[in-house]
Amino acid sequence: MTANSRFRRTFRKIYRKEEPALKSAPVPAGIIAEFNPFHRGHAALIQAARESGATHVAVVMSGDFVQRGAPALLSKWSRTEMALRCGADAVFELPLPWAMAGAERFALGGVFLLAQLGCRRICFGSECGDVKALQETASLLLSPAFSAQLKQELSRGTGFASAREAAVHSLAGPQAAALLQTPNNTLAIEYLKAAQLLSMELEPFTITRFGADHHDSTPRAGFASATALREWIQKGEGWEPFVPSEAAEIIKREIALGACPADPARMERALLFRLRSMTLAEFASLPDISEGLENRLFAASRKACTLDEWFSLVKTKRYSMARLRRILFSALLGLTASDAQGLPPYLRLLGLRDSGVLFPRQAKETGKIPVLSHSSDLLHLDKRGRIMVELEGKGSDLHALFLPRPVPCGLNLSHGMVRVRS
Amino acid sequence: MTANSRFRRTFRKIYRKEEPALKSAPVPAGIIAEFNPFHRGHAALIQAARESGATHVAVVMSGDFVQRGAPALLSKWSRTEMALRCGADAVFELPLPWAMAGAERFALGGVFLLAQLGCRRICFGSECGDVKALQETASLLLSPAFSAQLKQELSRGTGFASAREAAVHSLAGPQAAALLQTPNNTLAIEYLKAAQLLSMELEPFTITRFGADHHDSTPRAGFASATALREWIQKGEGWEPFVPSEAAEIIKREIALGACPADPARMERALLFRLRSMTLAEFASLPDISEGLENRLFAASRKACTLDEWFSLVKTKRYSMARLRRILFSALLGLTASDAQGLPPYLRLLGLRDSGVLFPRQAKETGKIPVLSHSSDLLHLDKRGRIMVELEGKGSDLHALFLPRPVPCGLNLSHGMVRVRS
Repeated sequence: MTANSRFRRTFRKIYRKEEPALKSAPVPAGIIAEFNPFHRGHAALIQAARESGATHVAVVMSGDFVQRGAPALLSKWSRTEMALRCGADAVFELPLPWAMAGAERFALGGVFLLAQLGCRRICFGSECGDVKALQETASLLLSPAFSAQLKQELSRGTGFASAREAAVHSLAGPQAAALLQTPNNTLAIEYLKAAQLLSMELEPFTITRFGADHHDSTPRAGFASATALREWIQKGEGWEPFVPSEAAEIIKREIALGACPADPARMERALLFRLRSMTLAEFASLPDISEGLENRLFAASRKACTLDEWFSLVKTKRYSMARLRRILFSALLGLTASDAQGLPPYLRLLGLRDSGVLFPRQAKETGKIPVLSHSSDLLHLDKRGRIMVELEGKGSDLHALFLPRPVPCGLNLSHGMVRVRS
Repeated sequence: MTANSRFRRTFRKIYRKEEPALKSAPVPAGIIAEFNPFHRGHAALIQAARESGATHVAVVMSGDFVQRGAPALLSKWSRTEMALRCGADAVFELPLPWAMAGAERFALGGVFLLAQLGCRRICFGSECGDVKALQETASLLLSPAFSAQLKQELSRGTGFASAREAAVHSLAGPQAAALLQTPNNTLAIEYLKAAQLLSMELEPFTITRFGADHHDSTPRAGFASATALREWIQKGEGWEPFVPSEAAEIIKREIALGACPADPARMERALLFRLRSMTLAEFASLPDISEGLENRLFAASRKACTLDEWFSLVKTKRYSMARLRRILFSALLGLTASDAQGLPPYLRLLGLRDSGVLFPRQAKETGKIPVLSHSSDLLHLDKRGRIMVELEGKGSDLHALFLPRPVPCGLNLSHGMVRVRS
């Protein structure tokens, strides 16, 4: 029996099984996340979502590359397993062009997929914990008045983030502008903007991020940031107390297998090789290129002898480090601006608990895009869908080269959906 | 004053200078070499060439990548300097598609360039030291009788080298066949074949390789093979006694600069990245692909997690390791079968002693291809020549990534010709 046919059988069994009876109508909620890696803050968000009345929690998760422009520390399969063991009911993949995009496009892809899944609620952390304030700012950012003000601020030559903050400041005062200074508020506002833009009815629910800040290197009240955790996992110590034990077991297993941590340093020469091999036209076709940035990237690629040098040659206050890192990794993966247009063309199921079956079922009933749960589903994809699957496969094959012990190609299709018994 | 204009001036000065008067007509001789690295055996060949009556010695040398399918241990500029300090009068570049080709095409490119330079004699080492025997075998290999016999031997499914040896054995007996069992004889025969094919009048001169064999790891009579020397330089010890002191100084200087030794291991992940990124069609377009080898290469590239694994997956007795290594490095460099057609389109001067000016002068007078001695010469190249120069530049930019301390791109054009005072 092949992995695929085994998988198909399991999947049919799940579909046939009746869901546990609920006292009232289900309240399906969704989270957009990276779980890079999964930590106690993530577990707290899932728990709070349930306490607030969510009966089912779906996650739309980045695959093998993440929004900060880097390979995920562990494969998407092990991160899916962590999420399921720590309380999520189902995990779906946010395809590469949205996973490795700026906050706006990242949120747009994620919110669209949550809505396709039939989620009625979106749950997220935020520094302010104030849904109303976040909603107001989201509406403001979508108003014509804001567009006009932003244009004016941008003409002064500052970077996009500062210009946006200044525009909000002049239209809605310092408190609203202050919201945009922290990463979780910013992402939350993008989720709410995306829901408005797509006319999706998604009730927002937020918890205040407590303990550590997003990039904070010192843990507080038992919580550490993902940034700090990644550093400690690279160093090989100190991370365990800040990760739920179920997730810690998986991380330890993956480290023992040589499948964690993915490290960009292992691919420094490969990245330099790719940069040195690229033509100016290829730089121009990357996502997120504007204002002749391709010339700067091309020139830096011909001078730089290390990646640090490359970053210091291209960096100005106009471009954030995350954006430059995303451009670098897009170059490696062969991701182009045309891949990143529109909305995700399918919902790929990465993993499921029995209770999570609600989501693919709802998506098949009411969603507008195909749900991929096994390889044979690929046959029914249109051309754009097939290109996206190939891109995702290439991403997975290259992610393997960042690991201590690379694995063969093809895992993206050969790896079965992750199943966790409820 | 830019490097280029400085170079142009020096060059004009050299051209204006009168050559030292010779007692009789010059006897210009040529050597085809890699000098990877330059050792006492190479110095002995140059000396023997002079003792046999050569008044001027030109070298046609591989650039940054060599025939065994690897980056040269040191850049072509420092290898040029070694050759000039150890007795050569002028060094010209064998362009990449011939430098990284099988013995037949390597010899064809080299002999063609020597003839363009006006060389009347070709000097080489051989295990047998018997010009007549080598000439006879070369003629045999060009005969219709040999072609027919070879076809028959190949149909038995053995590799090319064994089939060729068997064909020679059945036509000319065991002694002639035995000549083809050693690498220097084989290369010598290819030189002689190339001269016959191109109807070039090149008088052959050979010295018997004494001391170490080509691949021998134990030095004999003060000589060590290039293979052994490369290993010792990688290890950082033991190589110095086997290299003329002028060349040893240069090697030590380059090691101190982090410009030696180039090491494929530094680029293992980059090579795997390139292999994993390639389509089947891209594999099919590489040089030296036949009999559906592209399918084997593609499949191996999707499975292999190390380069050793890749080689063990693709290797059969049909394909030599050197050929597979050349294919691998062609893939890295983006070298295709179409680049490797025909004959080299130009003569690029890498370095010169005053006495060596005879060669570019002769080439300009009687040769059929342009001589490149500074960047402005590129303006007069045809399309194929410009493509070749770009390819060479890319090769040089990627060679830098194999070094302990990479250097910026562009060295291929920005580095001035090497000048050594006589």
